[in-house]
Amino acid sequence: MKITEQEIIDECRAICGDAHVETGNDIDPKYQRDWLDKYPSSPFIVVRPDSTEKVAALMKLCTATKTAVIPLGGNSGLTGATQAHPDQKAVIMSLERMNMIRDVNGDGRYMIAESGCIVENLHKAADQAGWMFPLVFGAKGTAHIGGALGTNAGGLNVVRYGNARALCLGLEVVTAAGDIMNLLPALKKDNTGYDLVNLMIGSEGTLGIITAATLTLVPKPAAYATAMVVVPDIKAALKLMNLVQNQTGGRLEAYELMDQVIYDLCVTNLDHVTAPFDYSPAFSILMEIAAGSPDDVKTHSDGRLNLATQLETILAMAFEQGLADDAIIANSEAQRQNLWAMREGALGAIQKHGNWVMSDVSFQVADLPNAIEDLKAAFAAVAPGPFCVAFGHMGDGNLHAFARPYDEDPKDHPTEAAAIKAALRDTVVKWHGSISAEHGIGQDKQAEMKQLKDPVAYAMMKSIKAALDPDNILNPGKVLL
Amino acid sequence: MKITEQEIIDECRAICGDAHVETGNDIDPKYQRDWLDKYPSSPFIVVRPDSTEKVAALMKLCTATKTAVIPLGGNSGLTGATQAHPDQKAVIMSLERMNMIRDVNGDGRYMIAESGCIVENLHKAADQAGWMFPLVFGAKGTAHIGGALGTNAGGLNVVRYGNARALCLGLEVVTAAGDIMNLLPALKKDNTGYDLVNLMIGSEGTLGIITAATLTLVPKPAAYATAMVVVPDIKAALKLMNLVQNQTGGRLEAYELMDQVIYDLCVTNLDHVTAPFDYSPAFSILMEIAAGSPDDVKTHSDGRLNLATQLETILAMAFEQGLADDAIIANSEAQRQNLWAMREGALGAIQKHGNWVMSDVSFQVADLPNAIEDLKAAFAAVAPGPFCVAFGHMGDGNLHAFARPYDEDPKDHPTEAAAIKAALRDTVVKWHGSISAEHGIGQDKQAEMKQLKDPVAYAMMKSIKAALDPDNILNPGKVLL
Repeated sequence: MKITEQEIIDECRAICGDAHVETGNDIDPKYQRDWLDKYPSSPFIVVRPDSTEKVAALMKLCTATKTAVIPLGGNSGLTGATQAHPDQKAVIMSLERMNMIRDVNGDGRYMIAESGCIVENLHKAADQAGWMFPLVFGAKGTAHIGGALGTNAGGLNVVRYGNARALCLGLEVVTAAGDIMNLLPALKKDNTGYDLVNLMIGSEGTLGIITAATLTLVPKPAAYATAMVVVPDIKAALKLMNLVQNQTGGRLEAYELMDQVIYDLCVTNLDHVTAPFDYSPAFSILMEIAAGSPDDVKTHSDGRLNLATQLETILAMAFEQGLADDAIIANSEAQRQNLWAMREGALGAIQKHGNWVMSDVSFQVADLPNAIEDLKAAFAAVAPGPFCVAFGHMGDGNLHAFARPYDEDPKDHPTEAAAIKAALRDTVVKWHGSISAEHGIGQDKQAEMKQLKDPVAYAMMKSIKAALDPDNILNPGKVLL
Repeated sequence: MKITEQEIIDECRAICGDAHVETGNDIDPKYQRDWLDKYPSSPFIVVRPDSTEKVAALMKLCTATKTAVIPLGGNSGLTGATQAHPDQKAVIMSLERMNMIRDVNGDGRYMIAESGCIVENLHKAADQAGWMFPLVFGAKGTAHIGGALGTNAGGLNVVRYGNARALCLGLEVVTAAGDIMNLLPALKKDNTGYDLVNLMIGSEGTLGIITAATLTLVPKPAAYATAMVVVPDIKAALKLMNLVQNQTGGRLEAYELMDQVIYDLCVTNLDHVTAPFDYSPAFSILMEIAAGSPDDVKTHSDGRLNLATQLETILAMAFEQGLADDAIIANSEAQRQNLWAMREGALGAIQKHGNWVMSDVSFQVADLPNAIEDLKAAFAAVAPGPFCVAFGHMGDGNLHAFARPYDEDPKDHPTEAAAIKAALRDTVVKWHGSISAEHGIGQDKQAEMKQLKDPVAYAMMKSIKAALDPDNILNPGKVLL
């Protein structure tokens, strides 16, 4: 089948309507950039289908004409996974108009959302139904659920609820050939063949186009108890986490590690934050537990929740066992918000100080004490300067480690910046960690993944890609090299 | 490469040692049958490697000679997934000697177990480390973890901890070509490419041979509170489940539905069980919640646990909301064991009555009230007789529904038995359920799956199988047709 570019454009218009196809100079600039302004995008066509059937028709067209297709969600990804290379003639398929919540089923505790739904809108819909959709991360007001599933997004409470994968019961997917695969039913047990749902999740649009998802709703905690706890070291932090998990039956909602550098940066650079302690702890933990019984939400005569008393009891155990040196429990919602403001403001506090070498790596949780020591030593050897595990999602072994060569801009020290990145990679390799914990591969980490991934696994991924997308039209040039 | 049968046998002996290769008439009868004595097995060779390297060497041999390989665990599967067809020259690769627990890491809350480890031994190892490995099902004393992962086994507390898939952090797999893929690190966040671990889980040995797994350990509940609750109908049972989940922050460990038929059968046929009620409830629920705080395990002056009081409070809400008509809370471990003896004896109680048409299906949880009504009506229309949802893992939407045509042996009424099975299948189709909730496909449900699975998904599974096992030597003739 031979077809001209104009014929492809005309066919896209026939499928989606003129108003939803942009080409050439008419393409909105928002489709020509990424969140970090790092990966410019030069699509040949931008098309906005509003139904699964239209997505399927477009894929049939692209398969017939061997045209590359890049699915696009909220464009909040950090790895250049949804941009068109200047040298490829690619269609960007924006799913923004597929933004219907098809069903919210309270009894069954699930909802079915189209891939263009903004994550925060799903939070609201779940809340209205009396439940919670617990996938929460920084870009929640922009990111689409389709993109969150495509990259298997993580976030702030993975320690309790898992990442995007764990919250997805089923998918509707359009294949490279333009066929619609319906695996939407919210079945908690279904052993009929291979797990195609999890194969699609995290594949960054290279194996199929997610058009809708069935998502799990969880009980909405009636209350939280929150504390900032000073720990003697990271090993103690680990043991404290296990103590809390054990004592609460797994009701730990967040467990975020802060070191002295980030503590000081927050206290100094965030005007709206009140310092929790009158000194700078070497390591502190922001922890939060959720109510787990009707008793937990009863209040004492002094207005405090039973849940807070419970946390106090657990922290008393921690003091006794030498796992905590100091602690402050939030006694009001305002105090709780102050502790969270530190955590949520951390990135801003860091950036106010200047530019850093940033990262998104993970380790086995039990390896964190050693891995962090190694990172610190390696960075100091390369170019002494501040190093911090700015927000360590400790429950998941996920660190966003930051470093600044000689406390100066990495751009002014490219050799040292590269050496810091190499040291980071070496430490990940040494401890069998991951070079991409929650942001995915995109274009950013393709070469590194090819180099570091188990070679048998890499070859298997290539085989699967070739089998499911033989013409390599689904987001080509991403993830795999 | 041409090679004689004798040369294959010799090579197996060279790899594993003479003592661990059986052929022809020397093959132990245990390798020639299945759990249900339904699928006879005629392997050409039985081989018992004791290391991943030996598994890899054997796979290289089998790939070079295009010899079929059937991985075998504890042989407790119910679908004929691990038997050799009489017309195929297959090697049965028993993993029974790969039974080392390589590591138990309490701090990191994981263990690494070889695939031949018996599930119950993993329970013990986890317990000794102060944690729990919560994959519990009837065959736990026989089944291997490799088989449990190969079939994505479920069980009694999936409502709390998920099925085998949810408890596996990583795998070591030998591919068709005999390469070793190491995805063992216990990473909670790792977004480097496609999810090969979940692809292998549930693939019943058709995509690779699982040789070891990294398994999650969870907090061990310090106490349980258990009740048998009479509910007005299944809709109320569903709402009650959600109420308990909400009030306990998800600490529901089991929620098992019993109808009047199975209640009566248990009370009549199980001598060691004391009837919880002095009448036969139409629908009752065995529910159990776990301790979630240090307070929960404190005892009142009458010796009762706080946790039991908490359950009482929740049940009081249920009575008020019309979700419960009657209830008995276990006030001692003996009373708790009596309630569980009913549940655990249910299959025996049914079988004591005679033969039934059995099933393993699942529905969306919210569809259970309607689906059960449909099943009841359909069975009554075909051949009136007792019908029961003997043990409904209600939290997972998983029903083991049983029926007896005219209250007689299905073997004596083959037409009606077939019609009952057809009605079951039609009901599953109508409600978008699954024909295999937790037992897998094997040989038993191949044709049915091919007929009922989403055709795009079926074709995708075939593509993946062809890509990963191009010579079709990994458990051929199972799962896919």
